[in-house]
Amino acid sequence: MSCRITRFLVLTFLVALIVPATDSFAEAAAPLSEATEECLSCHSLFSPGVTLDWRRSRHASNTVETALKRKDKERRVSLTSVDEVGGIAGYVAVGCAECHTANPDSHEDTFLHNGYRVHVVVTPADCAQCHPVEAKQYKAQNKMAHAHGNLRKNPFYHSLAETVVGRREIVGGTLKRSPSTLATQMDTCYGCHGTQVKMVGLKEIETEMDVMKVPVLEGWPNVGVGRVNPDGSLGSCSACHPRHAFSIKVARQPYVCSRCHLQPDVPAWNVYKESKHGNLFNTMKEYWDFDAVPWRLGRDFHAPTCATCHASLIVDPEGALIAERTHGYGERLWTRIFGLIYSHPQPIDPDTSKIRNKDGQPLPTAFDGEPAKRFLINKAVQRERKKAMQEVCHGCHSTMWVEKHFEKMDGTLADVDKQVRAATQLMGQAWRKGLASRKNLFDEPIEIVWTEQWLFFANSIRYASAMAGAPDYASFHNGWWQMQKAIQELRKAVHMKNAAQ
Amino acid sequence: MSCRITRFLVLTFLVALIVPATDSFAEAAAPLSEATEECLSCHSLFSPGVTLDWRRSRHASNTVETALKRKDKERRVSLTSVDEVGGIAGYVAVGCAECHTANPDSHEDTFLHNGYRVHVVVTPADCAQCHPVEAKQYKAQNKMAHAHGNLRKNPFYHSLAETVVGRREIVGGTLKRSPSTLATQMDTCYGCHGTQVKMVGLKEIETEMDVMKVPVLEGWPNVGVGRVNPDGSLGSCSACHPRHAFSIKVARQPYVCSRCHLQPDVPAWNVYKESKHGNLFNTMKEYWDFDAVPWRLGRDFHAPTCATCHASLIVDPEGALIAERTHGYGERLWTRIFGLIYSHPQPIDPDTSKIRNKDGQPLPTAFDGEPAKRFLINKAVQRERKKAMQEVCHGCHSTMWVEKHFEKMDGTLADVDKQVRAATQLMGQAWRKGLASRKNLFDEPIEIVWTEQWLFFANSIRYASAMAGAPDYASFHNGWWQMQKAIQELRKAVHMKNAAQ
Amino acid sequence: MSCRITRFLVLTFLVALIVPATDSFAEAAAPLSEATEECLSCHSLFSPGVTLDWRRSRHASNTVETALKRKDKERRVSLTSVDEVGGIAGYVAVGCAECHTANPDSHEDTFLHNGYRVHVVVTPADCAQCHPVEAKQYKAQNKMAHAHGNLRKNPFYHSLAETVVGRREIVGGTLKRSPSTLATQMDTCYGCHGTQVKMVGLKEIETEMDVMKVPVLEGWPNVGVGRVNPDGSLGSCSACHPRHAFSIKVARQPYVCSRCHLQPDVPAWNVYKESKHGNLFNTMKEYWDFDAVPWRLGRDFHAPTCATCHASLIVDPEGALIAERTHGYGERLWTRIFGLIYSHPQPIDPDTSKIRNKDGQPLPTAFDGEPAKRFLINKAVQRERKKAMQEVCHGCHSTMWVEKHFEKMDGTLADVDKQVRAATQLMGQAWRKGLASRKNLFDEPIEIVWTEQWLFFANSIRYASAMAGAPDYASFHNGWWQMQKAIQELRKAVHMKNAAQ
Repeated sequence: MSCRITRFLVLTFLVALIVPATDSFAEAAAPLSEATEECLSCHSLFSPGVTLDWRRSRHASNTVETALKRKDKERRVSLTSVDEVGGIAGYVAVGCAECHTANPDSHEDTFLHNGYRVHVVVTPADCAQCHPVEAKQYKAQNKMAHAHGNLRKNPFYHSLAETVVGRREIVGGTLKRSPSTLATQMDTCYGCHGTQVKMVGLKEIETEMDVMKVPVLEGWPNVGVGRVNPDGSLGSCSACHPRHAFSIKVARQPYVCSRCHLQPDVPAWNVYKESKHGNLFNTMKEYWDFDAVPWRLGRDFHAPTCATCHASLIVDPEGALIAERTHGYGERLWTRIFGLIYSHPQPIDPDTSKIRNKDGQPLPTAFDGEPAKRFLINKAVQRERKKAMQEVCHGCHSTMWVEKHFEKMDGTLADVDKQVRAATQLMGQAWRKGLASRKNLFDEPIEIVWTEQWLFFANSIRYASAMAGAPDYASFHNGWWQMQKAIQELRKAVHMKNAAQ
Repeated sequence: MSCRITRFLVLTFLVALIVPATDSFAEAAAPLSEATEECLSCHSLFSPGVTLDWRRSRHASNTVETALKRKDKERRVSLTSVDEVGGIAGYVAVGCAECHTANPDSHEDTFLHNGYRVHVVVTPADCAQCHPVEAKQYKAQNKMAHAHGNLRKNPFYHSLAETVVGRREIVGGTLKRSPSTLATQMDTCYGCHGTQVKMVGLKEIETEMDVMKVPVLEGWPNVGVGRVNPDGSLGSCSACHPRHAFSIKVARQPYVCSRCHLQPDVPAWNVYKESKHGNLFNTMKEYWDFDAVPWRLGRDFHAPTCATCHASLIVDPEGALIAERTHGYGERLWTRIFGLIYSHPQPIDPDTSKIRNKDGQPLPTAFDGEPAKRFLINKAVQRERKKAMQEVCHGCHSTMWVEKHFEKMDGTLADVDKQVRAATQLMGQAWRKGLASRKNLFDEPIEIVWTEQWLFFANSIRYASAMAGAPDYASFHNGWWQMQKAIQELRKAVHMKNAAQ
Repeated sequence: MSCRITRFLVLTFLVALIVPATDSFAEAAAPLSEATEECLSCHSLFSPGVTLDWRRSRHASNTVETALKRKDKERRVSLTSVDEVGGIAGYVAVGCAECHTANPDSHEDTFLHNGYRVHVVVTPADCAQCHPVEAKQYKAQNKMAHAHGNLRKNPFYHSLAETVVGRREIVGGTLKRSPSTLATQMDTCYGCHGTQVKMVGLKEIETEMDVMKVPVLEGWPNVGVGRVNPDGSLGSCSACHPRHAFSIKVARQPYVCSRCHLQPDVPAWNVYKESKHGNLFNTMKEYWDFDAVPWRLGRDFHAPTCATCHASLIVDPEGALIAERTHGYGERLWTRIFGLIYSHPQPIDPDTSKIRNKDGQPLPTAFDGEPAKRFLINKAVQRERKKAMQEVCHGCHSTMWVEKHFEKMDGTLADVDKQVRAATQLMGQAWRKGLASRKNLFDEPIEIVWTEQWLFFANSIRYASAMAGAPDYASFHNGWWQMQKAIQELRKAVHMKNAAQ
């Protein structure tokens, strides 16, 4: 018997006792279910990182029953009675087994592990046991839940993706493209959009403890926001609440958003961190409380993070509501500044693959800028959502400040969309002149210049404007500088004249 | 009466009491003026973020009288007697009214608000009540105070700006450019340089409390360093001391500088954060005291931030002066490494729009590199300023270390300027050959390549050298790699040969 | 006698007493050697930054004797007996003199300074007094130790470097390149790779204390990892353990790595900080203990930094070994993802200048992708090293998770290498067609496009895949987007067709 296994036997009985005592930031532990105790008896030793991370979490120090004792806005679970989880489940810590053995029949990846029907991939449907409102909002309203299909099922975006990440080689004197591999898909588009995780079968592996059979999953590991899970659910809660503390603190700090909302296509993080809000966050965050629920503006924090404006339950210092918690993320968004290819009102349905513009393209705007109105929220809804966002702004800024900020943003969106229009007209000329083929819209050098115009530079300017961010992201860093450079290249390619000035 | 307003009436009397008690980092509050109490009675509820931020500030816990009790280098105000502010103003906290009702007659944006003559835009002239020396230095010596006019009034820079951010559309078969909109100006150049804030008139708005008339301001909100204010003053102190704590800690950490001093044109922040100094700041800042005045090298901090070298009052561990506090920012700068189009001695006058080179261009150097000497500091002043900077370096580095560092920097400036010269000669050939028109120097693809050479890449290399920063900013990331790439493109465009090597 | 010098005399006796008392994070000071006391008597005043930084370090509060009392994995020194350092040296703090007067005869830069034979440049050979194992590993196994020669002595890389950083000017109607200057070398390649530091001679300087003669060193200041020191040793320990605290905390946080491992050529830092690991580091680091030795996974930290995977001694929460400390850095690396020009097995010898591919080029792979097997580790060694890395992963991740992660990485490396192959074939056509000359492989616009393909974009994708990092670094930010853009430009240049799709 190896030394490590001997230690395992001895430590099984000691570890739960020792760990909390040595951590200054641990709360009292909640009782563990028998199943979870059995998990921990091995995994405390074989996966110490995740088990100790979990031990310091709220999940380890709370039960559904204690969580439900918190009143009203302080409550962090959204089920309404301990009976909803059934049996003793509501009276034990939310441990390994409570998540990894939930809903075993719906999980294609369920396998028998030391007598338990365990699954590897915990999904929003599992989290919904205690957080049903959040799971429902995410699925019903959040475009991110549908990110996989919104890319995969949209021929326009899918063609763009494959043109970029397809494998290229020279065959018979031509540059040939084959379909992208799963490896590259996982590292690129579907790293953020989420893969489809499929159960392939079981495989025997040898661990330090035993030989055991474990599931082989295709498209995994992955924590994309629109992951298609083996139980059919969409998304990965750990995209924003990473394992195994699932801390609200991590979700409220902007770092977790930065993994995907990054330059050059969606430079939200880049713009935020160089904005006044980001400057204050970076300098003052040590004094802020990122764990308080509800989140009290002015008391727990003095400048917003991503979560403040887009997701969190915000109250004023006396507890009056400023903004509702939402996992739909659209409730405070009216305009979609991610241009496709122009900015446009937010889509009604988070499954955007259904959208068709007047020309039948799966895009929210036509190439001439006309929005696909039928699929987009109307002006009344836009007003309501804008008002919801402005309530957050008013926590620090005056009515006129806020009004003028958004007036400026509207002006900028108009400017940028106009320039995208000019670029698209130039591209249209190029296609008509045969300088590039419409068969694939993205694979000629001139088409790449056009795509960068709306996918990178226009977006950078829009984010910089919306978030009052670093002026460089609107100017010299993927901003107007690059837009003008690109439009001059397009102009030159079609031999159009610059008007004299 | 809405629920929120009821709460407002009740809370008016409670809030001042409650808040400091719950904040571990608050000092005792100073007495409030009647006017400020009246402001807070509403704004504690309607702008909780800013009021609570202020309550934790030194402004809330000090009066001019108590601030003046600190001696010599510990003093954070620069007026000399409590009488300078007049009346009881020196014996109350620096609250809402003390700033927002100051100098009402000089503020174009003064409006009547609940019986008070209030203005929205607090300016350096208002801050000068207690910080007259800083306000004076900023105005008289700091190029940043003049950043609006230095761009607006300089035909060379202004043409560059408008070429980039002007609106473009296709009209009658040509690509036409119209003047940029205010929205885009606010998001780009004047986001950093500062807008001209103009009073447009009053507008009736409906708030939760009342219907009231508030000023409509053009070019606002804006916190650009050269903002032209409604009282005629220049700048915005909150650019570096953001609202409403106005903390020296924020100004001393580099984040606040990063909003504008960002790649690719002025990559000071980028270079700093990847430099050894930045590495140490990022790892060790939690142990440093960013609030101490004076700032004791070796005791309060072990590696410099932007403020250390350029602005702060630095003393050695026993309190002996290493560097004076300055809001002029030029006192420790001799060479201007921001190339226009070459590096050059710092300008004498912070209003750089007056500069003319030998060819009459509003540039500190001619296209052949000759400096516009008459407008630039002489060698003696350069030496003195370099010495002032080196005093800071000597806090940690030996005499020879410092000497060799700056010797290296001089060598690099010469190398970079030589390459800019070659690029400019190639551009000159292109103009002479008619490959581009001199009518606008910035709007042809080849002109854009030339501009990036001196505006982006040369600057990146210079900053990397000056701040002993990340070698990548001199090499592959907007550095020599891009310089050589650009010069090869220019060479190719004019059909010049590469000399054999 | 100047005021400052008077203070010096008074303070000489006070400073050692005062400083520790005022610092909350100081340990008890160890006794100082006479020599170090003498150093401090001046330098506490004249270099307060470094001396105070040192006073808070472990070097100031430990002696070899006390350091050796720690047992086994807790030990931070690797000599085995106090006698190895000789005399009283083992019983005093590791102060100024203990490092700066060590091995005086082997240091070309030794000079007489107030009666002591002092050298400025402390080297790995000096640190080896107490850390012999680390110094030996670094020299014998670490490519970084050889980074100077690996660049300087390799004609392929050296030609690339000189093509980029050589000075260019227009002479007689051609664009001429002269050799790069030392200044530019120090700011670019050799800023990371390390300079050759040479003793030039002594120079008289005037300090506040005295006129004294100090060494003039060429290629200095520099903290490159492969610095060739005046004692013939290689490297600079302060590259990762910066002066004068030499803290393990600094080396374990990723910032210090970011100075060189930066986009676009080696975007390890960029990828890390936007990865899930980096997200967790950024949010949770305040709760982690970066100073604990050994470093307990799950207890001291919950997500890895650079050091965790590549260098540190990692144990599980009960102290069982997960990974050995190494200063060789290759022990957990099997594939070299920094493409030259393809990914390849790690070199056997850290001096890579000896490598020759089948075509005689000093590259680990041929232009057709064939590895220079004789110089690269074999499959058995690769397996062993991969297993060592996977042990770290298993601290948090399951066996299948880890297996699938690396399976994905292998797939990505294959995809990327295939595309580099296609780009290289296109470049080959361009050379054959005379569109560029093979005389210099890097100085024509088309050659620059080709080089960016493998040096920037392929690397970015590889790092993003290996570190499960931000998908944008594999997609739009120096990733597949740029790879496909570049390959289309190469294709167009040689007039090859895109295969219809």
